[in-house]
Amino acid sequence: MTMNQSFIPPKRTIMTPGPVEADPRVLQALSSPIIGQFDPMFTDLMNQTMKLVRNLYQTDNEWSFPIDGTSRAGMEALMVSLIEPGDRVLVPIYGRFGYLLAEIAERCGADVRIIETEWGSVFEERTIIQAVHDINPVITAVVHGETSTGCMQPLLKTGAACREHGSLFLVDATATIGGVEFRMDDWYVDAVAGGTQKCISGPSGTSPVSFNSRAAAKMNPRKQVERGIRTEHDAESEAPPVRSNYFDLTQLQDYWSPRRLNHHTEATSMLYALYEALRVIQTEGLEERFSRHLLHEEAIIAGVKAMGLEVYNNHEAKLPVVTCIRVPEGIDEEAVRQLMLDEFGVEIASSFGPLKGMIWRIGSMGYSARKENVYHVLFALESALSFFEAPVITGRAAAAAMEVYRHAAAASLSR
Amino acid sequence: MTMNQSFIPPKRTIMTPGPVEADPRVLQALSSPIIGQFDPMFTDLMNQTMKLVRNLYQTDNEWSFPIDGTSRAGMEALMVSLIEPGDRVLVPIYGRFGYLLAEIAERCGADVRIIETEWGSVFEERTIIQAVHDINPVITAVVHGETSTGCMQPLLKTGAACREHGSLFLVDATATIGGVEFRMDDWYVDAVAGGTQKCISGPSGTSPVSFNSRAAAKMNPRKQVERGIRTEHDAESEAPPVRSNYFDLTQLQDYWSPRRLNHHTEATSMLYALYEALRVIQTEGLEERFSRHLLHEEAIIAGVKAMGLEVYNNHEAKLPVVTCIRVPEGIDEEAVRQLMLDEFGVEIASSFGPLKGMIWRIGSMGYSARKENVYHVLFALESALSFFEAPVITGRAAAAAMEVYRHAAAASLSR
Repeated sequence: MTMNQSFIPPKRTIMTPGPVEADPRVLQALSSPIIGQFDPMFTDLMNQTMKLVRNLYQTDNEWSFPIDGTSRAGMEALMVSLIEPGDRVLVPIYGRFGYLLAEIAERCGADVRIIETEWGSVFEERTIIQAVHDINPVITAVVHGETSTGCMQPLLKTGAACREHGSLFLVDATATIGGVEFRMDDWYVDAVAGGTQKCISGPSGTSPVSFNSRAAAKMNPRKQVERGIRTEHDAESEAPPVRSNYFDLTQLQDYWSPRRLNHHTEATSMLYALYEALRVIQTEGLEERFSRHLLHEEAIIAGVKAMGLEVYNNHEAKLPVVTCIRVPEGIDEEAVRQLMLDEFGVEIASSFGPLKGMIWRIGSMGYSARKENVYHVLFALESALSFFEAPVITGRAAAAAMEVYRHAAAASLSR
Repeated sequence: MTMNQSFIPPKRTIMTPGPVEADPRVLQALSSPIIGQFDPMFTDLMNQTMKLVRNLYQTDNEWSFPIDGTSRAGMEALMVSLIEPGDRVLVPIYGRFGYLLAEIAERCGADVRIIETEWGSVFEERTIIQAVHDINPVITAVVHGETSTGCMQPLLKTGAACREHGSLFLVDATATIGGVEFRMDDWYVDAVAGGTQKCISGPSGTSPVSFNSRAAAKMNPRKQVERGIRTEHDAESEAPPVRSNYFDLTQLQDYWSPRRLNHHTEATSMLYALYEALRVIQTEGLEERFSRHLLHEEAIIAGVKAMGLEVYNNHEAKLPVVTCIRVPEGIDEEAVRQLMLDEFGVEIASSFGPLKGMIWRIGSMGYSARKENVYHVLFALESALSFFEAPVITGRAAAAAMEVYRHAAAASLSR
């Protein structure tokens, strides 16, 4: 690569848990010319995007807008704005990203309490609810989908229990939002953050968040307007301010409200991308989109099993958009991925921590969740395993996946 | 605007202090397909971008990479990583963004000391140096270009004095970088952040930072590897960690080094944009680019004066890429801007705090700093002022600007 030329990325089939392929309409939106942040056309776009974020999370929350950063920026914005140093925060951990939530909370000055379950499993909801009861946390923060283990934590009852105990319920929906059912209001979720580089199928770098009036009531007493733009009408708070300026959701409410009080300069192109990605989702329909993700999951599992491989955690709590496969004994997991990328242009992922080297992770998210991609990843995996003389059944995976698709098409016709 | 359609931004001439028009090559780069964050083509792009960030800041610092957030995210990353609670931080303030630095430092737990000078003026360097001597701060943080007042703080001697006193020297170069000379190493700057939406002429949302080994030595004792990806080789630090995970530059060093330890998912499209914007700058040449910005400043000033308007702070410390104009008495500054946008599609800016309603600010940054844009903003301003019956001399501004351009072309030919 020489700096005399523009960078032209190679064409890849991306079947990882993110970043995944962006919808072509989103890529096109990214190249639109810049307009000013206070241009009425732009502030209108901000408002329309807020509506789409509400639809995405199935919520009526007024405060539903993107943070200009990646998904962990969204979670940090929620946490640093909600947590006052010393607040007790409960984090149930069942994989890497639970540890991350605990780490962020700790850095925000929280008194962090964790409960853990083995990687590859999830909690029974009553275990979390019992911990809420015993620990009495100000905030309970849970990861909805753990891409590190391919598991999804059931959350149907946890929110109601948190509300009953007066604990704010925070959810990290990075891995699930736009691909798997998530009903913010019905599930009594007080604050949520997501990422755009997974099932939303946009570029990484923006994080739609939503929080309700309970969450706003917790953070707003610490509000301070930035001094260089403060007017005589802005009361100065006595309380110590939120520990971050960039992530201060009390200031960001002013920026995303009709007051339009300047904070950062909203990331123009990324907002174009987010708007278009959410518009694409709305056009497809949430239910249709969730069904599509389930269909491709089924095809991948069928194909993988037809090769004689073992799906790592094929249980009730499997995350539908990530399928983990046990690496056959004696096989170098990294060499297989390398060959798949070099020869076939197909990318899958390894994992972290105790699962490193033990499993592959195949994502089927957003625009990447397409028939041709599923066939392509099965073919590339089978070919790479054959090359390394792994004990793999050849020639059956595509047929098994096709069987799933044909069956679904027939069922759809007969409805 | 209806959500049934993609958003098509209107065509605007953006002559504000940011966000400004992005170079068409940058817009094109934004629409390139996504590739994975550990794809060797992508990690190579990360490395090439680091080289270009070094060239931009004229530094040899290894640690030169973008933060995935807007310019204030870059400053916050530097501050939260460098400041240990209780550290004394000196902030000389001459406009809105000085207050912002003080606010960020305060939120990071610093013992903040400020010195102030009137908006519209700058400090004599010896005043800052005296304060460094008297206050003995661990860190001295200065805004290089204050877009709020159109002033630029001279920094030729401050860094050397800071080093002598053992104070780390931080600079916010958001308004200047890529448009005005900035020599990080020659000026003894220890850490710097910039924005992409001004003279770099990309979209808002990424902030190139650079810091040297002195800055790294201050932050690195607090390093902690994220628990979910920690190995037995990673020592656990005894010191309290940096107060942010997202902005933790000790972790980001691992992500931007050959270790490639996963942190956030790098914002793919924004990195494409940054790489291309910096490549465009390198192709133009830094010196040529600075000269171009000076030329268009001269043309704007000539045109504005030919209308009989007063340039607000036309002194030695004027920021070359922002020209402030006094609003004539009795004229509604907002109505003029509104008319310019509605009728001519031209955007200029107001200001903040004590200058709100008192001045307009015309930016001439990056790709927006072009002849046709300069003529267009002069024409629109003159027409709007005439419409509101301001005491403005008509019909001379374009000629005055043209005179500047012709003179420059002739001088260039005769060289």
